[in-house]
Amino acid sequence: MTRPVIAVVGGGQLARMMAPAATALGITLRVLVESPHASAAGPAHEVVVGQPTDASAVQQLCAEPVPMAVTWEHEHIPQEFFEIARQHGIPALPGFAALVHAQDKIAMRRKMDALGLPNPAWSVVDTAADVDAFIATHGREVVAKTSRGGYDGKGVRVIQGSSDITDWLEAFADGGPQVLLEQKINFDRELSQLVARRPSGEVRSWPLVESLQREGVCAEVIAPAPRTDPAVSVQARGIGEHIARELGVVGVLAVEMFDIQGELVINELAMRPHNSGHWTIDGSLTSQFEQHLRAVADLPLGATEALAPAIAMVNILGGENTDLHASLAAVEDTGAKIHLYDKEVRKGRKVGHVNVLAGDSESGRERARQVATLIREGGHA
Amino acid sequence: MTRPVIAVVGGGQLARMMAPAATALGITLRVLVESPHASAAGPAHEVVVGQPTDASAVQQLCAEPVPMAVTWEHEHIPQEFFEIARQHGIPALPGFAALVHAQDKIAMRRKMDALGLPNPAWSVVDTAADVDAFIATHGREVVAKTSRGGYDGKGVRVIQGSSDITDWLEAFADGGPQVLLEQKINFDRELSQLVARRPSGEVRSWPLVESLQREGVCAEVIAPAPRTDPAVSVQARGIGEHIARELGVVGVLAVEMFDIQGELVINELAMRPHNSGHWTIDGSLTSQFEQHLRAVADLPLGATEALAPAIAMVNILGGENTDLHASLAAVEDTGAKIHLYDKEVRKGRKVGHVNVLAGDSESGRERARQVATLIREGGHA
Repeated sequence: MTRPVIAVVGGGQLARMMAPAATALGITLRVLVESPHASAAGPAHEVVVGQPTDASAVQQLCAEPVPMAVTWEHEHIPQEFFEIARQHGIPALPGFAALVHAQDKIAMRRKMDALGLPNPAWSVVDTAADVDAFIATHGREVVAKTSRGGYDGKGVRVIQGSSDITDWLEAFADGGPQVLLEQKINFDRELSQLVARRPSGEVRSWPLVESLQREGVCAEVIAPAPRTDPAVSVQARGIGEHIARELGVVGVLAVEMFDIQGELVINELAMRPHNSGHWTIDGSLTSQFEQHLRAVADLPLGATEALAPAIAMVNILGGENTDLHASLAAVEDTGAKIHLYDKEVRKGRKVGHVNVLAGDSESGRERARQVATLIREGGHA
Repeated sequence: MTRPVIAVVGGGQLARMMAPAATALGITLRVLVESPHASAAGPAHEVVVGQPTDASAVQQLCAEPVPMAVTWEHEHIPQEFFEIARQHGIPALPGFAALVHAQDKIAMRRKMDALGLPNPAWSVVDTAADVDAFIATHGREVVAKTSRGGYDGKGVRVIQGSSDITDWLEAFADGGPQVLLEQKINFDRELSQLVARRPSGEVRSWPLVESLQREGVCAEVIAPAPRTDPAVSVQARGIGEHIARELGVVGVLAVEMFDIQGELVINELAMRPHNSGHWTIDGSLTSQFEQHLRAVADLPLGATEALAPAIAMVNILGGENTDLHASLAAVEDTGAKIHLYDKEVRKGRKVGHVNVLAGDSESGRERARQVATLIREGGHA
């Protein structure tokens, strides 16, 4: 019997949530996890313990039966990894030429400019003088980012002067990542367009969603984005699909955007299942996790319709309660779909999420918030 | 960190499909599988290889961290198993007093009579003379069943005389299972009522469904049962919930019934997730697999609403094609939800199923049939 294998780098909740989708498709999910206690280690069908920089672990990941493809749940994939996959004849997806735009924020800004897509004003800065000159032009506060290595608000600072990023400039002078400055956008809200593309070229998009960040971390998502001019939805979808095609993305692409009174500006790209797509597990005919696997396996992409007028997703962030499972007994909202990541609870860490299918976005958001709060704070039945 | 564990006996597709539900709930699913290549072995979070009759395997299943409960995906659980679970202080659910009615068809008929629920005419027969007397009273053809050990049409025969079950009568005389005869019902269709109950008493039902059997094996299910008098739905639900309460079932209970022009007669009971509930994975807010785990963990039961006006489930039974996964590339119906069981293909064996959410039952059935046939026969893109 042929047993198709897909290999995944990373043992977090994104790899964890690929496992149920792989199970349905009859795919064996072989996951490279950082620790045997990683979030994905239990649900994965096969487990290799190690880092993507560890050649022997990567060899195990690529061993017989040879995976039909290798993919990842985060973008921190060293270039050597692609070489090893190539030697084994395994497609590594999304490919390096696409992935670099999710790894390197400067490469991304350059590419968006080249594609004529809406960037904020931005500049690469080498020195304190460069920083102060950019601030003089673009207002009291600007956004500084390291080109590589950031996630969930790390590697991003709102600054008022070069002294706020002295450490980054020193690190750059010592061979560290370059520093990017961006105009600080006074947006009305943040939107996210999720798209998937497979190697044969087919592209599919989910409805545009609104996301709410708190302290640089995604807190809530509403699908579809409430009170949205259809022209904005069409434009967002066009941007997402254009990027997917022009960069040759394979798998799921998330395009985070700012909405300034209906004008869209691109904020970030991610090339993997994304927090703004967690609602799709319960709220869309095809989840982003199934779609990502379909895409990397070059299978026809699934239908992306929403299953309710509004779907709300609220993250469960680590709080006082350390025994999340025990709190499930107190959840009286029997329509709330709860997802726990089996991760040790630390303050502010993403440890689960709640999806609610609702008739309208406000009632959905309210219900999802209540359940997430109860689990975070440790309600008791 | 507390890591809640639920232990499951049996490595088939029903245990396999519990794994995604356990992942979402943050439960570690520890499965006793017959072989390391069993359908459930990959998706299970922890695996013990062995039989439920193998004491050392059962000890491993009950080892630290001690499961909060042990349950199963089939009813062939030896009585000694309950004793071992009791010694470890682990609730074994559904309990023996309930489960016996799904293990023993004679115990079931007696109990249904005692509860005043609609049985066909039935009799326990010891000898050829008993058989021929029953046939003389109840028509040319009757249904013979062994009291224990049957599934998917095995252990069931339509007979015209005692000579059709000489082997069973001889086996009984040698200490084998008793033989039950039942009046053969000329039904219009078969219905199935799925119910779940948790130890604290809460009971929830899914919509009544219609099932179509071919050669004793479930082939198709439509939810909700089309063209059904609301009074019949209410009665079916009442029967299911009455049985769940009176027998003290914990977990999912399936009550298969015959529909004779709106009159219901009970055919079979199952106490575990059931083929007639596979539609719930994609078509209901709470799947039967999640509900079963919620029930055995004594968590609040999830909402059971259907997510579309009609959901069709069609089984993929083993046919010519042995590489099911390769056929997925040819499936153009992007709304069809495919579930493969990673089982070696043998003729007529259940190796997967297809769910379709549709506006009406006929179009749903047609679409699900087409996809199932294409995968079974090995379509190519």
